[in-house]
Amino acid sequence: MDKSPSDKINLAEKFALFTEHWRPKIVATLNGQEIKLIKVQGEFPWHVHEREDEFFLVWKGQFRVEFRDRVVRLSPGECITVPHGIEHRTCADDEAEILCFEPAGVLNTGNVVDAAFTAPIGTTI
Amino acid sequence: MDKSPSDKINLAEKFALFTEHWRPKIVATLNGQEIKLIKVQGEFPWHVHEREDEFFLVWKGQFRVEFRDRVVRLSPGECITVPHGIEHRTCADDEAEILCFEPAGVLNTGNVVDAAFTAPIGTTI
Repeated sequence: MDKSPSDKINLAEKFALFTEHWRPKIVATLNGQEIKLIKVQGEFPWHVHEREDEFFLVWKGQFRVEFRDRVVRLSPGECITVPHGIEHRTCADDEAEILCFEPAGVLNTGNVVDAAFTAPIGTTI
Repeated sequence: MDKSPSDKINLAEKFALFTEHWRPKIVATLNGQEIKLIKVQGEFPWHVHEREDEFFLVWKGQFRVEFRDRVVRLSPGECITVPHGIEHRTCADDEAEILCFEPAGVLNTGNVVDAAFTAPIGTTI
């Protein structure tokens, strides 16, 4: 049967389809926005998104969003909005699973290009 | 301390703040979109959103999205996009807790005005 945009998405099944860290996978596109799944571990580079706000929801594990003046520690079922223009980095001591909601086409490293961390745009799963 | 747009949001704490069904509560606003929490029980009226896609993520309980030609049954950790222009209704036999991502200012009943179900726009929690 053809896939429909309104097919059910099971997050656990989708997370099980990949293992790499810091490589966002798009599971839904709507209203010019994307819902992405990300596995994270370690420290991401400091960066800014000049125009786009980002919303993170922790699905599994412990996750940190670090700003220059404070650190926000998030557990499963906790969320944060990172407003555009605010320098930040994301971190996790152990692997964590994150949902991200942001405009389509956002580069994960924002204003920075990093050989290890900058991910392809538009990868779906 | 003043609330910051990047303060942590705990979904369980937010869901505990209200009891009424079918009354979306905005917990975050970003990029012209809103993240809403909804408690649902029973059957919502059939309706269409002419322009806006909606994304539902089930947080707790069992939830159904009914289209005219099929029913999609969703458990916690399952999601669905309801594309604009597609008639649908949402249902839950027992109370369920839902996250909704959609553009700011969407009327919950879309093209329908229903004395019991049409909710005020812009209620934050």
